[in-house]
Amino acid sequence: MTHTPIRESGCELCDLAAPMTVYADSKLSVIIVDDANYPGFCRVIWRDHVREMSDLAREDRLLLNEAVFAVEQAVREVMAPAKVNLASLGNVVPHLHWHVIPRYTDDAHFPAPVWAAAVRQTEATLLEARRALLPQLADAIARRMNQG
Amino acid sequence: MTHTPIRESGCELCDLAAPMTVYADSKLSVIIVDDANYPGFCRVIWRDHVREMSDLAREDRLLLNEAVFAVEQAVREVMAPAKVNLASLGNVVPHLHWHVIPRYTDDAHFPAPVWAAAVRQTEATLLEARRALLPQLADAIARRMNQG
Repeated sequence: MTHTPIRESGCELCDLAAPMTVYADSKLSVIIVDDANYPGFCRVIWRDHVREMSDLAREDRLLLNEAVFAVEQAVREVMAPAKVNLASLGNVVPHLHWHVIPRYTDDAHFPAPVWAAAVRQTEATLLEARRALLPQLADAIARRMNQG
Repeated sequence: MTHTPIRESGCELCDLAAPMTVYADSKLSVIIVDDANYPGFCRVIWRDHVREMSDLAREDRLLLNEAVFAVEQAVREVMAPAKVNLASLGNVVPHLHWHVIPRYTDDAHFPAPVWAAAVRQTEATLLEARRALLPQLADAIARRMNQG
């Protein structure tokens, strides 16, 4: 069955180009966000322009939950963070997406959320070492998503 | 089968008293947080002291996802927010819990996350009107959780 994606003109997630996309299917995609302070920050983006988890059919909601879970597992496996943060906010871009963020005690905001005021600058060598793991993270995400 | 809860001394979610608890079973509880700026802010708290979603058995993870979903539905139904925010952070209190937050365009941080710097003070009459919905929200959560 062909699915015609729901699109909203001007929504930056509908229009997203895909240079860092590590997984994509007809329902969702997974990107590694190019965030200088947060190597390994990932987003799971639902393809259709819907606002909330409760706007999804049950089957789709379970699928999206499982994708976020697969990305969390890959992030833990490869990035070995102190904590994983998961969030679906979407106040600015009300197009359903999840943030999966590896947190470290030396990161710019720890223990506050990444959206609070920064409290430190992480050492460049630490960020560089984490950034070097991204190809491995991309592989781990693709492997787990393709198992599903 | 009796389940002996995993407890960590000094963890504020293990030790939580239950004045605003609107639902509780052997696995999880749902509380309405008494946040002056965010009437309707709820938390779903896993009973065992575990850190991450990926520390749960699959069955428990699905149960927790469904509970967060039920609370999101109740929040939408009763509080009619502009957007729902969902987050599992736990950097300060690494005891698995989810925030379910009704967001309004007039709230203290909109469209930024509630953890960013506040940008306004919501009118007292609006907060009061939302606070008046809390008994109804408690009922809606209990009803949806007991359906599950």
